[in-house]
Amino acid sequence: MNASAFELSPLEGGGVTSAAGFKAGGIHAGFRKKTPDRLDLALVEADEVCSAAGAFTTNVFCAAPVIVSRENLGEGCAGTARCIVVNSGNANAATGDVGLTTARRECEIAAEAVGCAAEDVLVASTGVIGQHLPLEPFETGLPALHAKIDAAGGAEAARAIMTTDTVPKEWAVCYQSADPAYDGATFTVGGMCKGSGMIMPNMATMIAVVTTDAPVAPSALHEALLSAVSQSFNKVTVDSDTSTNDTCFAMASGAAAPEARPIELGTPAYEELAAAMLEVCMQLARKIATDGEGATRLVTVTVTGAADDADADRAARTVANSPLVKTAIYGHDCNWGRIAAALGKSGARFDASNVSIDIMGIPVCRNGLTVPFDEDEALRRFEDPEITIAADLGQGRAATTVWTCDFTHEYVTINGDYRT
Amino acid sequence: MNASAFELSPLEGGGVTSAAGFKAGGIHAGFRKKTPDRLDLALVEADEVCSAAGAFTTNVFCAAPVIVSRENLGEGCAGTARCIVVNSGNANAATGDVGLTTARRECEIAAEAVGCAAEDVLVASTGVIGQHLPLEPFETGLPALHAKIDAAGGAEAARAIMTTDTVPKEWAVCYQSADPAYDGATFTVGGMCKGSGMIMPNMATMIAVVTTDAPVAPSALHEALLSAVSQSFNKVTVDSDTSTNDTCFAMASGAAAPEARPIELGTPAYEELAAAMLEVCMQLARKIATDGEGATRLVTVTVTGAADDADADRAARTVANSPLVKTAIYGHDCNWGRIAAALGKSGARFDASNVSIDIMGIPVCRNGLTVPFDEDEALRRFEDPEITIAADLGQGRAATTVWTCDFTHEYVTINGDYRT
Repeated sequence: MNASAFELSPLEGGGVTSAAGFKAGGIHAGFRKKTPDRLDLALVEADEVCSAAGAFTTNVFCAAPVIVSRENLGEGCAGTARCIVVNSGNANAATGDVGLTTARRECEIAAEAVGCAAEDVLVASTGVIGQHLPLEPFETGLPALHAKIDAAGGAEAARAIMTTDTVPKEWAVCYQSADPAYDGATFTVGGMCKGSGMIMPNMATMIAVVTTDAPVAPSALHEALLSAVSQSFNKVTVDSDTSTNDTCFAMASGAAAPEARPIELGTPAYEELAAAMLEVCMQLARKIATDGEGATRLVTVTVTGAADDADADRAARTVANSPLVKTAIYGHDCNWGRIAAALGKSGARFDASNVSIDIMGIPVCRNGLTVPFDEDEALRRFEDPEITIAADLGQGRAATTVWTCDFTHEYVTINGDYRT
Repeated sequence: MNASAFELSPLEGGGVTSAAGFKAGGIHAGFRKKTPDRLDLALVEADEVCSAAGAFTTNVFCAAPVIVSRENLGEGCAGTARCIVVNSGNANAATGDVGLTTARRECEIAAEAVGCAAEDVLVASTGVIGQHLPLEPFETGLPALHAKIDAAGGAEAARAIMTTDTVPKEWAVCYQSADPAYDGATFTVGGMCKGSGMIMPNMATMIAVVTTDAPVAPSALHEALLSAVSQSFNKVTVDSDTSTNDTCFAMASGAAAPEARPIELGTPAYEELAAAMLEVCMQLARKIATDGEGATRLVTVTVTGAADDADADRAARTVANSPLVKTAIYGHDCNWGRIAAALGKSGARFDASNVSIDIMGIPVCRNGLTVPFDEDEALRRFEDPEITIAADLGQGRAATTVWTCDFTHEYVTINGDYRT
C-alpha cells in the first residue's frame, strides 16, 4: 500500500447507506407501546446476498439474537447475509428457549418480507432485559418497512436503533484504492451505531452496522471488523465487549467494483479497507462516549510509557472508569490526585516517582509531584467539549487511548428511572 | 475453644476507648482552615507501649504516613506502639520526599507531646491528595490534645477523623474468655473508622483503629487484624484495600489481664480474639457502606453456588460495583436484568440457565428466566434501610457477601464539588 496515494475523505451526513448496494430505513413497529411516534425497528438490506461478518459480546448472559446471528453467519462469524434487522425497546435477553424461538421466527418473517433465506438474516435487539420480545411488531412492521426502505434511509435507520441515545450516530468515508488490482476504484465505508451507557458500558448494549461497497471476502471482512472493533468500540472504557447484546455487523456489497475479485487478507486493498473501517468505527465510538448517558464532556485518556500493551490498557481504563475522576471533570476540578490513585490501583507496573500527568494539556504532575498551574486557565479549558487526560508512566514504550465521558447528576436520573 | 461458652456482647456507645488502658480525643488543629469548628486531629494513646499491628494499602501511590507507619511497626507490620495520630483534611499523599520528612517529623512532635520514642508513634492522614501537609497544626495541636484526652474520648476521636462521612463510626464488643489460660477474664475489643467513598472505594481512603485490653503477642494481633480486614473492610466492594492511604491499626494494651501471658496464634484465646475483632471490623465496614457518599440504602450482595471463592468474590463485587445496579436500587427498580448482566461479565464461571436471583427476599429470576412478582410488595420492601441481593450461580459450593450502597444524585454533588 502506497501511503501517500491513500487518503480517507469523510462524507458529510454519510451513514449506513452511503455505500452503493444498500437500502435502509426505520419505522415504529410497536415495541415501544408508550411512544407511538418513536421509531423502534430498523432494516438494512443489501441488493443481493453478500459477504457479512459479526463481532459479538462475550457475556455469559448472551442474548438470543446474538446466538441466532452467530448461527446464521456460520462458523467463525464470517459468511453471507442479505439483511440486518434491529429492534429497540426490548433486548430479547435472559429469555431462554422462548427467546431463541422468537429470534429464529423473526428471521423467517424478515426472510419472507425481503425475499431471501432465513439464514441470510442477521438480527440484533436492544432495550429491557428479561422480558419476552413480541413477534407481532415484526409481522406487521417488516413488510411495511421493506416496502419503504431506500438508499437515502440510513439516517432513519440510525434513529430507529436509539435507546437512551440523545442523537443518532453515523459516519462514512470514501477512498480511491491505490491497489492496482482495483483499477482506481472509489470505495465507501459507512456505518451507524447506538449506545450511550458510558459509565460502565460493559453492561450497556452497543449495536453497530458497517457497510461497504468494496468487494471483500468474508474472512477478510471479519478480520478487518475485529481489528477495527478492538481499537474503537472496545476502547470506550472497560469490557465494552461484554454486555448481553453487544453486536457489530459488517456487510460488503461489492457494488463499487462488481467485476473485481474479492479483497483478501494480506493485500494492499485489505490494508486500505481495514484503515477505512477503523476510521468509521473510531468516529462512531467517539460519538458513543460523547453521548454518554447524562454526559457533558467527551474524555480522552491517553497512557504512554507503559511496560506493555496490557499495562497501558488497564491503566487507561482504570482512570476512564473512575467515578471520582469523572465527577471531578464534571465539577471542572483539575484533580490529578484522583487520576494518580486510579493509576496506582490499576495493576500496571510503574514507579510513582516517574509519573507525569497532563490535564487538557496543562502539566499538573511531574515525577509524582504537584506542578503549580494557572487555575483560571484550567477553568477556561474545561469549557472545551473534549477533555484530555495524558499520563506517562515512565516505565516503557507502550501506549493506548480510551474514551469515556464525565459523570453527572443526569446519569443518575436516567438510570435511576429507566424502566419505571 | 468451647463455642457454647463464648459469646460476644455489644457495648452500646462503645468505641476505641472501651477497652481498658486507652485514652483518646480530638481537636481542631488547623488542617481545615475553612471550618474552624471542625475537629481535624485525633489521638489514640495507650497508657504504656504495647503490642501493635497494621494493615495497609497496596496502591503504587502509597502515601507518606503509610510508609512511615510501616517503618515504625517494623518488618511484617507487627510490633509495638504507644499512640496513633490521625489527621483529616490532607492525605499527605503524592508528596514525595517532602511528605516523608513531614510524616517523620509528625512522629517526633507526637513523641515529645506523649513522652515516648518516635518509633512508637503510628500515623495516618486523610483528605486532599498532592498537597503538602503543614506541620504547624501538629506542633500546636498535639500537646493540647495530649493534655485533654481521656478514657471517654473515643467518640470525639471518631468525629475528628471524618471527611465526607456523615456520621462517626464506632463499635465495641466484650466477651468472657473460655480459655482456661485467662481464668475467666473479660476482654473488650472496640474500634472506630472513617470512610464513605463507596462507589469505587478503591480510591477512597479508609482508616480504622481497633483496640483491645486483651494481652496479645504482636504476631497474633497482626494475624487477627489481617483476617478480620479481609472479611470486612475488604468486602466493601472492589479493591477497597488499594487507595493511597488505606490503613487499619490494632493495639492491645493487655490491661484486662496484666499478669497473663500474651495470646499466641493457635490457642483457644486467639480464636476468641479473632472472632471479636472480626465482629468489630464487620460492623464498622457495614457502617462505611451505609454511609456511602450520598447513599440512601445499604446494599448487601450475597453470591452462593460459585465454583470457588475467587469466582464468588468477583461475581459479588461486579454486581456491587455496577452503577446500573446501584442506580436501579436508588430508583426502587427490581431490575434483575442489570444484576444478571453484571454476573455475566464478571468472569465467574456458570451457566446462565442455572442462575437464581432474589432481591429483598423476592424471587425474581429462576434458571435464568423471569419470575413474575408483586411490584407493590417490592416497592414496600424498598423502604427498608438495607437492600439484599442474593444470586445463586448453581455451579458449586463457594459463597461470599459484600457490602455497598445505592448510587444517587447526592454522590455526584459531593464528588463533583469536593475541592472547590
